[in-house]
Amino acid sequence: MSPKSTNKPKSASRQKTSPTAKTNTSKSSKKEEAILSIGAYLIEKLQEYGIRDVFGIPGDFVLQFYAQLEESPIRVIGTTREDCAGYAADAYARVNGMGAVCVTYCVGGLSLCNSIAGAYSEKSPVVVISGAPGMEERRNDPLLHHRVRDFNTQREVFEKITVAHAALEDPLTAFREIDRCFAAAARYKRPVYLELPRDRVNAKPLTPHHPQSEEYFSDPQALAASIEEAAERLSLAKKPVVIAGVEVHRFGLRETLLKLIEKHSIPVSATLLGKSVISERHPLYLGIYEGAMGREAVTKYVEESDCVLLAGTFMTDINLGIYTAHLDPQKCIYATSEQLRIGYHHFHDVRLDDFLEHLADEKMKIVKRPMPKPPAKPAAFKAVEDQPVTTKRLFQRINELLVDNMVVVADVGDSLFGASDLIIHQHTEFLSPAYYTSMGFAIPAALGVQVANEKLRPIVLVGDGAFQMTCLELSTILRHHFNPIVVVLNNKGYTTERFLHEGPFNDILDWKYHRMPDLLGGGWGFEVNTESELDQALKASLNNEDKFSLLNVHLQPHDISSALTRLAEKMSKTI
Amino acid sequence: MSPKSTNKPKSASRQKTSPTAKTNTSKSSKKEEAILSIGAYLIEKLQEYGIRDVFGIPGDFVLQFYAQLEESPIRVIGTTREDCAGYAADAYARVNGMGAVCVTYCVGGLSLCNSIAGAYSEKSPVVVISGAPGMEERRNDPLLHHRVRDFNTQREVFEKITVAHAALEDPLTAFREIDRCFAAAARYKRPVYLELPRDRVNAKPLTPHHPQSEEYFSDPQALAASIEEAAERLSLAKKPVVIAGVEVHRFGLRETLLKLIEKHSIPVSATLLGKSVISERHPLYLGIYEGAMGREAVTKYVEESDCVLLAGTFMTDINLGIYTAHLDPQKCIYATSEQLRIGYHHFHDVRLDDFLEHLADEKMKIVKRPMPKPPAKPAAFKAVEDQPVTTKRLFQRINELLVDNMVVVADVGDSLFGASDLIIHQHTEFLSPAYYTSMGFAIPAALGVQVANEKLRPIVLVGDGAFQMTCLELSTILRHHFNPIVVVLNNKGYTTERFLHEGPFNDILDWKYHRMPDLLGGGWGFEVNTESELDQALKASLNNEDKFSLLNVHLQPHDISSALTRLAEKMSKTI
Repeated sequence: MSPKSTNKPKSASRQKTSPTAKTNTSKSSKKEEAILSIGAYLIEKLQEYGIRDVFGIPGDFVLQFYAQLEESPIRVIGTTREDCAGYAADAYARVNGMGAVCVTYCVGGLSLCNSIAGAYSEKSPVVVISGAPGMEERRNDPLLHHRVRDFNTQREVFEKITVAHAALEDPLTAFREIDRCFAAAARYKRPVYLELPRDRVNAKPLTPHHPQSEEYFSDPQALAASIEEAAERLSLAKKPVVIAGVEVHRFGLRETLLKLIEKHSIPVSATLLGKSVISERHPLYLGIYEGAMGREAVTKYVEESDCVLLAGTFMTDINLGIYTAHLDPQKCIYATSEQLRIGYHHFHDVRLDDFLEHLADEKMKIVKRPMPKPPAKPAAFKAVEDQPVTTKRLFQRINELLVDNMVVVADVGDSLFGASDLIIHQHTEFLSPAYYTSMGFAIPAALGVQVANEKLRPIVLVGDGAFQMTCLELSTILRHHFNPIVVVLNNKGYTTERFLHEGPFNDILDWKYHRMPDLLGGGWGFEVNTESELDQALKASLNNEDKFSLLNVHLQPHDISSALTRLAEKMSKTI
Repeated sequence: MSPKSTNKPKSASRQKTSPTAKTNTSKSSKKEEAILSIGAYLIEKLQEYGIRDVFGIPGDFVLQFYAQLEESPIRVIGTTREDCAGYAADAYARVNGMGAVCVTYCVGGLSLCNSIAGAYSEKSPVVVISGAPGMEERRNDPLLHHRVRDFNTQREVFEKITVAHAALEDPLTAFREIDRCFAAAARYKRPVYLELPRDRVNAKPLTPHHPQSEEYFSDPQALAASIEEAAERLSLAKKPVVIAGVEVHRFGLRETLLKLIEKHSIPVSATLLGKSVISERHPLYLGIYEGAMGREAVTKYVEESDCVLLAGTFMTDINLGIYTAHLDPQKCIYATSEQLRIGYHHFHDVRLDDFLEHLADEKMKIVKRPMPKPPAKPAAFKAVEDQPVTTKRLFQRINELLVDNMVVVADVGDSLFGASDLIIHQHTEFLSPAYYTSMGFAIPAALGVQVANEKLRPIVLVGDGAFQMTCLELSTILRHHFNPIVVVLNNKGYTTERFLHEGPFNDILDWKYHRMPDLLGGGWGFEVNTESELDQALKASLNNEDKFSLLNVHLQPHDISSALTRLAEKMSKTI
């Protein structure tokens, strides 16, 4: 996966915000101009934004559009549940630049709420398309099946969890609304919602539709002033540092950031949500910065800095190590797509991409300082025969497994915390709901990754609690012959919660997770108790190239990763 | 299950709308008056409304309240997913009178949207309790994990799918808000939403809380006028008939309705959603009325009637056989909790219970007319060796299985349509999302049924598509040693949709459903191809008294039930 191709969605750059504008304008001078139906235009738009696959489940209110999708070049990926379709589309968007999900009315759409809310939280642009009752059949306000309060209920719900929404009820406005929503998804990197009544799928406008560009620009003076001030701070700083956040990935700015740090030799760390936004083997890379949860050397280096450039970073509680981070705002340059703040100076109307690009081009003198020592490279993992597997050793072993085409997909809990210490290679990826932290993300996300790029091989790290929520999406993975390696951290319950408040509600049933292939009729399962079993199972998994592999790794209920141990120690000192 | 105990929730009758009022008033005259915290009061309220069990999954924003629940007499039933907790609470409410679910913020709550929307649609009173970030920690509007847009997002979403909602942020108003929401759930039989910030669980009011009654009454004159008019119509009618709907069950009016029909010898049918609202072996019972989908004799009898009393009936598309029903409004008395309409006369301010009770007591002369012949009792099912099972024969066999303690729980699709022909015994139940029609209801609903009353034994009828959505809730069923008999109608895809629009998106992976016990570590699985295998498996299942039994019944992809055949025939004639 080259960052260039995956991080720069076709629609993300300014030149392409309204990709159809030129085409249609040039077409309009010709004699004949094809007039597309709403459904056909929607399909065209999906393709223009680089969406080749749509996740979802059909239902009667969306069957007409499904039939249209089926005849288009777009591939429809049926999942077992709608929420899984949402997670998969989210992961697809993270890899591909934009994703889409298509479901039926209410029973489908309302099942998406949580996964789409997660995509909103973590800025993943997912286009939600929902079928709806036809306008004609709504006239006398009948009690059609799937209806909740009135026919607006679902739209009103999605208004709360998307950045733009439209009900495509009238061909007069539907086409503009489609343009507006796609543009919003590309600009804000958040989900959008389009509701398509079933009797409007084939509706056409009276006149051909000509998309309008919705371009937006930085204020040149504000941009120049911010660059001057930022460059001065970085030049004067004795120990500048960058904290790279997930927006660098979302807005396709990885190359820009690399240019900035390499040209000026600025060391760089990343947040947990932004993990792998630059290669973790890059010589300027410090490690994950996450307050007390991170490695002490990284925390110390960042917090001693006299100029911290936070590039596309969300200041979430988890990114900040549950508020154990200490960053002085006066010393920070905080640049995101939503705001630009240098010390206590707020700048408006400066685009993140403009800011980083101009800053990278700016001439600065940066004082070179020694980097913190990288963590001692762990000795090669030698499996100890009959030694029960611990969480710490499990992550050590997985770290050795990582090769260039592997994507680590971490679910919530210690799967995530432990994974923060993994060293992600160049050109690889790390996906996790590290801010919204919705359990059950990982398995359907692995599906989304491989639908987006079949050559990427996911290593899925998932706790038993999260696994029980969405594991059945392995069915869809099996159907498409994808080959993720799924590691179930089976600690018999909600272990992270045990540290907050122990109680019987944290216990769950101990399934024979490795028997999943018996239920689904395919895939490979391994039961792992000891280090040598772990070693063997992982080696065998690497050879299972056309099916999923699943390791049921037995762990003690109170055994936790090094990262969670660090956090627990720090928190106990604070309280 | 006696209708009296299960259909009359403790809080449903007018006398008990505000059950604490008397107690607290009498207490207040004493010297000491206990001041409860918000959390403790919520728990007290749950118990007062007859809720003994709460479904859900813990999370950090709700752990404090979980700890309080754990110490209370209320049993916490942990499920594998939140949406399943919602379905289970809905089914629990249908059996018990009211149900509750308790989850964490956003990742938990937003996962409930679909199942709570279904409870709203079908009038099932579920109390949703969600944890939330503490008020203190929200001050500087931080990016706390699980947050979507702002701290109001989840509340605003639930505003759309509940009948009352409150954020218990201030102890000054929290207690009244709790009273108001519980009263609304009892009155409207719809879900309500209570959001409890984690630093308010132990908050106490300055002065003791004295609940106010929120009683509402019928207008005596409007009531008298409506009774007079209805009685006259029924008396003059040559062929009166009642269509009983689900509200008769929800409002605990089964005995009242029985009195009305028995005293006046009025034949009665039921809607699909209201199926089993009166015993289907009652001599006055005609069968399910659902337009072309129903048995022709029933449809004819009802549609030839010159006075149809629709009692607590929703006029939904499915209840009306996808609008193949023909009812002349001029000949109808339409009485629900929301409106009373006699012919074209609308009456306001008449309670459904008052109307039915007064009507039952009214003196009327009803002309006795012959009942339609009951359907020919099918000959005893004799399994044909090596004969592949068909949908029709499957339902015939299941019909024989039904005994008094059995509850039929039907999922959506042909499981529901086919089940409409089953004959539900006296004192038994039929549960199905027959209006909202959300796939995946049945398995978690079976859990809810047995949590509400362990002696009820669910027969779960579920298609393979629906089964794939929520089957893992068998885990919770196994954990509690419940014994539903689950029949998977394995027709390899979304068969009902195949009749609307065939396409590859209707195909799903054919799992080894009967291997589910291998994954979960318990339960019994049977693979069924032939009638003799069906017979053996059902007999064996009846003997599995402390574990679930699961039958993977192989059916042809286009094989459908008699009811769906009837509908398809009628629809093809109409179009």
